[in-house]
Amino acid sequence: MDWASKNTTTAKVNGFTCKSNVTAEDFFFAGLANPGATNTTAGSIVTGANVEKIPGLNTLGVSLSRIDYAAGGLNPPHTHPRATEIVFVLEGELDVGFVTTANVLISRSIKKGEIFVFPKGLVHFQKNNGKSPAAVISAFNSQLPGTQSIGAALFAATPAVPDDVLTKSFRVGTKEVEKMKSKRFVKD
Amino acid sequence: MDWASKNTTTAKVNGFTCKSNVTAEDFFFAGLANPGATNTTAGSIVTGANVEKIPGLNTLGVSLSRIDYAAGGLNPPHTHPRATEIVFVLEGELDVGFVTTANVLISRSIKKGEIFVFPKGLVHFQKNNGKSPAAVISAFNSQLPGTQSIGAALFAATPAVPDDVLTKSFRVGTKEVEKMKSKRFVKD
Amino acid sequence: MDWASKNTTTAKVNGFTCKSNVTAEDFFFAGLANPGATNTTAGSIVTGANVEKIPGLNTLGVSLSRIDYAAGGLNPPHTHPRATEIVFVLEGELDVGFVTTANVLISRSIKKGEIFVFPKGLVHFQKNNGKSPAAVISAFNSQLPGTQSIGAALFAATPAVPDDVLTKSFRVGTKEVEKMKSKRFVKD
Amino acid sequence: MDWASKNTTTAKVNGFTCKSNVTAEDFFFAGLANPGATNTTAGSIVTGANVEKIPGLNTLGVSLSRIDYAAGGLNPPHTHPRATEIVFVLEGELDVGFVTTANVLISRSIKKGEIFVFPKGLVHFQKNNGKSPAAVISAFNSQLPGTQSIGAALFAATPAVPDDVLTKSFRVGTKEVEKMKSKRFVKD
Amino acid sequence: MDWASKNTTTAKVNGFTCKSNVTAEDFFFAGLANPGATNTTAGSIVTGANVEKIPGLNTLGVSLSRIDYAAGGLNPPHTHPRATEIVFVLEGELDVGFVTTANVLISRSIKKGEIFVFPKGLVHFQKNNGKSPAAVISAFNSQLPGTQSIGAALFAATPAVPDDVLTKSFRVGTKEVEKMKSKRFVKD
Amino acid sequence: MDWASKNTTTAKVNGFTCKSNVTAEDFFFAGLANPGATNTTAGSIVTGANVEKIPGLNTLGVSLSRIDYAAGGLNPPHTHPRATEIVFVLEGELDVGFVTTANVLISRSIKKGEIFVFPKGLVHFQKNNGKSPAAVISAFNSQLPGTQSIGAALFAATPAVPDDVLTKSFRVGTKEVEKMKSKRFVKD
Repeated sequence: MDWASKNTTTAKVNGFTCKSNVTAEDFFFAGLANPGATNTTAGSIVTGANVEKIPGLNTLGVSLSRIDYAAGGLNPPHTHPRATEIVFVLEGELDVGFVTTANVLISRSIKKGEIFVFPKGLVHFQKNNGKSPAAVISAFNSQLPGTQSIGAALFAATPAVPDDVLTKSFRVGTKEVEKMKSKRFVKD
Repeated sequence: MDWASKNTTTAKVNGFTCKSNVTAEDFFFAGLANPGATNTTAGSIVTGANVEKIPGLNTLGVSLSRIDYAAGGLNPPHTHPRATEIVFVLEGELDVGFVTTANVLISRSIKKGEIFVFPKGLVHFQKNNGKSPAAVISAFNSQLPGTQSIGAALFAATPAVPDDVLTKSFRVGTKEVEKMKSKRFVKD
Repeated sequence: MDWASKNTTTAKVNGFTCKSNVTAEDFFFAGLANPGATNTTAGSIVTGANVEKIPGLNTLGVSLSRIDYAAGGLNPPHTHPRATEIVFVLEGELDVGFVTTANVLISRSIKKGEIFVFPKGLVHFQKNNGKSPAAVISAFNSQLPGTQSIGAALFAATPAVPDDVLTKSFRVGTKEVEKMKSKRFVKD
Repeated sequence: MDWASKNTTTAKVNGFTCKSNVTAEDFFFAGLANPGATNTTAGSIVTGANVEKIPGLNTLGVSLSRIDYAAGGLNPPHTHPRATEIVFVLEGELDVGFVTTANVLISRSIKKGEIFVFPKGLVHFQKNNGKSPAAVISAFNSQLPGTQSIGAALFAATPAVPDDVLTKSFRVGTKEVEKMKSKRFVKD
Repeated sequence: MDWASKNTTTAKVNGFTCKSNVTAEDFFFAGLANPGATNTTAGSIVTGANVEKIPGLNTLGVSLSRIDYAAGGLNPPHTHPRATEIVFVLEGELDVGFVTTANVLISRSIKKGEIFVFPKGLVHFQKNNGKSPAAVISAFNSQLPGTQSIGAALFAATPAVPDDVLTKSFRVGTKEVEKMKSKRFVKD
Repeated sequence: MDWASKNTTTAKVNGFTCKSNVTAEDFFFAGLANPGATNTTAGSIVTGANVEKIPGLNTLGVSLSRIDYAAGGLNPPHTHPRATEIVFVLEGELDVGFVTTANVLISRSIKKGEIFVFPKGLVHFQKNNGKSPAAVISAFNSQLPGTQSIGAALFAATPAVPDDVLTKSFRVGTKEVEKMKSKRFVKD
């Protein structure tokens, strides 16, 4: 939007307020400065810096995230429904990959200072196979890219995805599916 | 593009030919008239009607597919990286659903003549829990929406997605993952 | 929009509510299941399934319509200002066509299961020259494509399009124009 | 595109050449300086200044036209499939209007220096009811908006739009339709 | 938006009201008919005709401006962050130019009736080196293109751009920068 | 584009090759790993990671840059015609700012791990007022954002921007302008 416009005092654009008296704080965020706590089930944590945190991003079509990984940590296979992602490695080394619509795995090991692209909407992941922590900055061409974690979406949804959908999709029995569901929490 | 333009004889737009002498055949397709063969592993088959089949669709941002389901057939959880989908039931009854980025399953049973929306990029599926075949027409707001089948992308990719990524994502052991992989073919 | 976002409770996006607690009903519509009443002047009826009927379509850029045709029925020449259309024939046979910006008529007969594309913004029509009813499902790459029926827009507008505009456009006399206007109702 | 990019030497973008060594001539056009010949059937003439005339406009999404009107001249009802139009009156006075999708005529008289908007894809017209010539500059938010003249599209297409489509659309007999067709030339 | 939609009564779209009962006045503007007062510091004045003046332009992606120039008047180097511009010369003669991202000046003299393109976001200017006033109509592919005047942005901002940024950017001393700042008013 | 499509072997999209057999190298770049040489006139250097370096970015609408700053180094006022920018500080501390279209300076000091947004098309700068080097990663929502450095565009263009345009814009004499020009090189 036009930050100088007189007309935007109380308007909402994209469902977010369009402030008329912006200050530097509306374009600033300090929340990516420190590593997030990686003592999660997967050993990784994503910290977002999008329009929900930075009002000035509204209508501007870009955002960042920071991802921290414990040694052995994984950012499990997921998609971003509304954006392409580029990661820049801040620390450590990661094995990263995405799968094309032809089921070709495009993967590589990337280390500090290197970057890798995950095309819009495709399943991708990053794993820290090193012995020390790792971290990346991710850039997205959306102010709110959204994230869908495959494992959580299929095995920890509320209500649950029907067993017969999962057994047939993953070629396993109901017992295995029930076990996979039982091992998860919605907060993934 | 402007179908009347003199300048487009040999041009390619979006990587597809932009023909200068279009005929009705460039805007027509008969390939969705008959049911596809549903004797697949999943018991469903998708027939596309996109810009690869219909040259006239180039730059026009829309396409269709037909999906046929055997009794008990499943169109397994998948995403379309570049489009929202609406299905219209031609025949039979289906249990359909998608999972939001908050891991909420939005699902419902739909029958002949009813429609359901699968928002852009979100994991969704359709299952024919009836005793007779079912079929739908799907509409997409992309001339080439792309499809990523989750099970195939993760367990049948070439090269393979590493076991440790899958065991950690799905909370199972290497033995189960190897079994899940062994049960798949790349052509899914 | 991000159906998982916490921030969208009361927001309006594109002028439509962006609900925070969506259910399957927001993505479902049954209104295309049965044929519409084709006893209209033109012998055809359009039933829309767009964002005005399906709240969940908001921001998703796609919609459907069902069109029913009596024997001999016509969906008269019209345009969609904001979308390309693809029709899939549910029943019967139709003679369809659109006119390019070079005044070339691209037309064809299409029957059950066949599809045809009407490029964005171009004048097009469908006529049921068969002896039995016909029906199609139309897909649009807009959540609200809009429709402008040429005959109604020019001869049944309120206030009326001036006679001298119409006589000069259609190369007829005022008497004929007045007659053409008198034969129409605004509800076309 | 990036006019400074080294990579664009021979590329075509949107089907138009993307020149690598642009000069001022690629961004300049003198063809709107003088009135066009208004001795046409309708008494008006449109001169385009779009990407077909101005190579530098490629990918930039805007173009102009000049329209000249003899006394009594009409720019007959037409649509632009890909753009909204704003007219600025250079000379004379015009009665202008467009019809909404609800068949409401939005019209007005505008004179030298005044401007009027014709929303994307809607049928609109301009008529010079004055005793002296008139002229406007039109701006479009497309590098190639396209124009579809309703009368020509329906009554002068090649091949011809079937009589039964036109009689039913315009509520007239075959005799009148044949007469209306016979009075037209494709070059409208 | 769809001017016929029933749903848009009180909605705001892009932060601007989306009126449900539009009239011709919502699509009309007379404010460009007369020359603006060119007795400004630069000898030029811009009069906008955008969505802030013309409610009907909302969502339609186009707008106009009129620029008047005294003899010797300059429209100083500026950018439009959200639009490409095309100027049409109404009166007089102008020396116009823009600079590419490769620092190539693309410039030319244009006279009455000629047009010139300023690509999106690039620095451009127009100067009237003639002895009589000049005027242009500018078209933009945005309903609110925004304007950033380089001299004012750098030397008349509030708060002020730090001297050391300006001295280093323009390779001058603090004394010159202070002088350049002192000679400006925020209202430029 | 659809990386799985069979049709894209030799096509160019946006003027860049659309490869049919992509490998991980097409989505990878190591060129941002090490600091660039900051012994430039301004004491800063920008290293791009866009579609010219990373073929896989084509059509994906995002890119990165790395900017290094010597102590006292400045990234002089510039614009990106096609993108919004977010910077993440890798090292050191910077004084950053942009100017709105209302000539309001929005500025702040940011240090390691903090981020700041520069809205699309607005003039912005970063200065390292610390005693040690600084570095940032910049994200853009364009695969080729383009950069226009204000000082170079106005005082080092080829051919040169006319003196009278610059004297009037910056309120200085021809002697100062000539001096400012003489102190620059095109390679800025």
